[in-house]
Amino acid sequence: MKWSNGYAPVADFYVQRGFAGRTGFGLTPALIVIDVAKAWTSEESTIGNDMTPTIDIIVDLLQTARERKISVFFTTMAYDPDLHEVGHAMLNKLPHLKTSLIRGSDATVLHPRLGRRPDEVVIEKQRASAFFGTNLISHLVARSIDTLLVTGCSTSGCVRATAESSHNYNLHTIVVREAVSDRSDLAHEANLIDIDNRYADVVSSTRVTEYIRSLK
Amino acid sequence: MKWSNGYAPVADFYVQRGFAGRTGFGLTPALIVIDVAKAWTSEESTIGNDMTPTIDIIVDLLQTARERKISVFFTTMAYDPDLHEVGHAMLNKLPHLKTSLIRGSDATVLHPRLGRRPDEVVIEKQRASAFFGTNLISHLVARSIDTLLVTGCSTSGCVRATAESSHNYNLHTIVVREAVSDRSDLAHEANLIDIDNRYADVVSSTRVTEYIRSLK
Amino acid sequence: MKWSNGYAPVADFYVQRGFAGRTGFGLTPALIVIDVAKAWTSEESTIGNDMTPTIDIIVDLLQTARERKISVFFTTMAYDPDLHEVGHAMLNKLPHLKTSLIRGSDATVLHPRLGRRPDEVVIEKQRASAFFGTNLISHLVARSIDTLLVTGCSTSGCVRATAESSHNYNLHTIVVREAVSDRSDLAHEANLIDIDNRYADVVSSTRVTEYIRSLK
Amino acid sequence: MKWSNGYAPVADFYVQRGFAGRTGFGLTPALIVIDVAKAWTSEESTIGNDMTPTIDIIVDLLQTARERKISVFFTTMAYDPDLHEVGHAMLNKLPHLKTSLIRGSDATVLHPRLGRRPDEVVIEKQRASAFFGTNLISHLVARSIDTLLVTGCSTSGCVRATAESSHNYNLHTIVVREAVSDRSDLAHEANLIDIDNRYADVVSSTRVTEYIRSLK
Repeated sequence: MKWSNGYAPVADFYVQRGFAGRTGFGLTPALIVIDVAKAWTSEESTIGNDMTPTIDIIVDLLQTARERKISVFFTTMAYDPDLHEVGHAMLNKLPHLKTSLIRGSDATVLHPRLGRRPDEVVIEKQRASAFFGTNLISHLVARSIDTLLVTGCSTSGCVRATAESSHNYNLHTIVVREAVSDRSDLAHEANLIDIDNRYADVVSSTRVTEYIRSLK
Repeated sequence: MKWSNGYAPVADFYVQRGFAGRTGFGLTPALIVIDVAKAWTSEESTIGNDMTPTIDIIVDLLQTARERKISVFFTTMAYDPDLHEVGHAMLNKLPHLKTSLIRGSDATVLHPRLGRRPDEVVIEKQRASAFFGTNLISHLVARSIDTLLVTGCSTSGCVRATAESSHNYNLHTIVVREAVSDRSDLAHEANLIDIDNRYADVVSSTRVTEYIRSLK
Repeated sequence: MKWSNGYAPVADFYVQRGFAGRTGFGLTPALIVIDVAKAWTSEESTIGNDMTPTIDIIVDLLQTARERKISVFFTTMAYDPDLHEVGHAMLNKLPHLKTSLIRGSDATVLHPRLGRRPDEVVIEKQRASAFFGTNLISHLVARSIDTLLVTGCSTSGCVRATAESSHNYNLHTIVVREAVSDRSDLAHEANLIDIDNRYADVVSSTRVTEYIRSLK
Repeated sequence: MKWSNGYAPVADFYVQRGFAGRTGFGLTPALIVIDVAKAWTSEESTIGNDMTPTIDIIVDLLQTARERKISVFFTTMAYDPDLHEVGHAMLNKLPHLKTSLIRGSDATVLHPRLGRRPDEVVIEKQRASAFFGTNLISHLVARSIDTLLVTGCSTSGCVRATAESSHNYNLHTIVVREAVSDRSDLAHEANLIDIDNRYADVVSSTRVTEYIRSLK
């Protein structure tokens, strides 16, 4: 059985209503790692969690992607120390921004296990979606990418928002099930189902690895 | 108690993590009604539902908004009959698009109870968010809007996506709890919590009506 | 000599400053025809001109593009009759909008000589750039387009703005010299030079036709 | 007489055709200074020029703006040293990018005479328009800005592109005539006319200073 949790009926119901088809893989993928930096991966951070199992999978995917010369992108988030880059409405909604993501602090630096290479673009974003207020779509067009493989965190926030934007641009969008996580397991499971219903195929890392290996 | 369903723990958990603050109301609101057209409101449509109770609330809000001369916007969705405007990846993901939203068909016409007036802009969108691929943000800037009151359907799709975009643009974003609905109650409840955690205040229609009446 | 008019020194000067390189053709082009509708092509329209020689070239390019199964896009512009879709600032800047581009009027209908086919997408835009407030970039991504061949009018307005946006998205951008025009010859010549300096290669229709014929 | 150069007939002609109205000032302006950094202001830089007279005017405008507590924004441009952030098509078109705008180099640092304060947001952009791939529109919405006062360089590039985007978003857009410049005087004059015809009012710094002083 595909989904096994309290939210599973939403999956079945949406299939009946004409959602949750398979977008499928395209020909030229890119791999994106969303927000795997200390703010999210350290248990000492307000918004952080131990993400070791997720990072294990991401590290494996990165290795496969690099072997096959697939484009790799990373994101992190950052604001100026005095928060003039954060709007009033946003700061009220997300009080953690007062301290969590100051530009130049350790919190915003990519996790060392990602082993980011100089030819892999890092995008500093300020919203959940990696596409909003950034040049990501232009980077993808420059490389003739038609498929975005989404990994990182959080499933209910930046992963879902990025998957939605990617779908909006008509990219084949794949969320790698074991390579995304959320500070809440409930939120993780429910959002995977919504994502799969509407925007992207949620696919196992085994199947995605197989796909990458099959290229060229 | 604010939330009462299986997903409620996500609300409590996210509060502890520095989310779910109050964005609050601004000074100059607009009211948007998302996708209240036959495709969504008729039980004969694949993607439709009886939305009578939701429409009742929306009709009341519209009356109050018009009394106070607040800007009102509507959205609907439409594609060409041969679906050349729908990308391959999107059509695979959302098979209902083969028949559900053909431009010029009854399915895409706003529900008559909305009583749309000629000075109220209708936005034809092709994605979940009312902002993607449309001029909505420009219309809001032209009117110096700082607050978007979101109503319509579906909570897990176009409502959430529009609320997220609105937050991205730094608008005070308010989702009117009883004025939004989803074909799945489970999806409705879970997504209201995610929205309230991350993007917008979920507020009762009574409170929103009071706010509108308090203006000027 | 490439440019022969009073503005030609700008071309030479910008070359010395590290601009005006050749972006070159990519592998998968689309042809776009900007605003060739009665408002622009009829001498009875405030903003119109006799565009016959330009349309002759566009018609030839369309035939070649269709023979080679290249994607074709058209744009037009339209606003509601009461101009609620036009912002105050914009209406003040462009007084012709009071009458020139009313949705549903003949003025906004594509010129019959274009022979638009049902599988060729028409984009109704409200700004100079064909990308602003539209889904054009998504249509291009869906078709894996890497090159945009720009034709139509006006060189100093919608053509330049569209070429700039296309460059912003990292598309190889080609403006077809004889297939674009402006109501002012001076504006036409100066803007071709600026476009060639900064955003797109200005290339003869003979060379573009040759390129299209060479495909596949 | 308003315009006095070889391109002046374009101004007269466009007025007759229903362009070149006055957008006028709004109620809540922001001042933006485009790309006044060493790459553009030093004669040793490929793309640079002595901009002293322009900077003099900008410094005066900044002082007035700060006195009246008007929001101030700055832009600069930067790419990674290995140019992976620059697309192939763009690098071919703009060969100067190979060396001119490396992130972290002096070239990208704001000119010291601007005296940027910590509460004034600096936007690192990668395209001509300050709005493309940035959060500028969100910053403006957060501050309820309805009017953008544009200064900096170059008139035919980033100034025009930013003015066009600002117009697209329905902001009252004002280009301050003596506070913008171009490495080519011809390009400067011609583009001011195009900008004034289509997107923004070109207004003297005296009048703009008067406007700012009249606020509140």
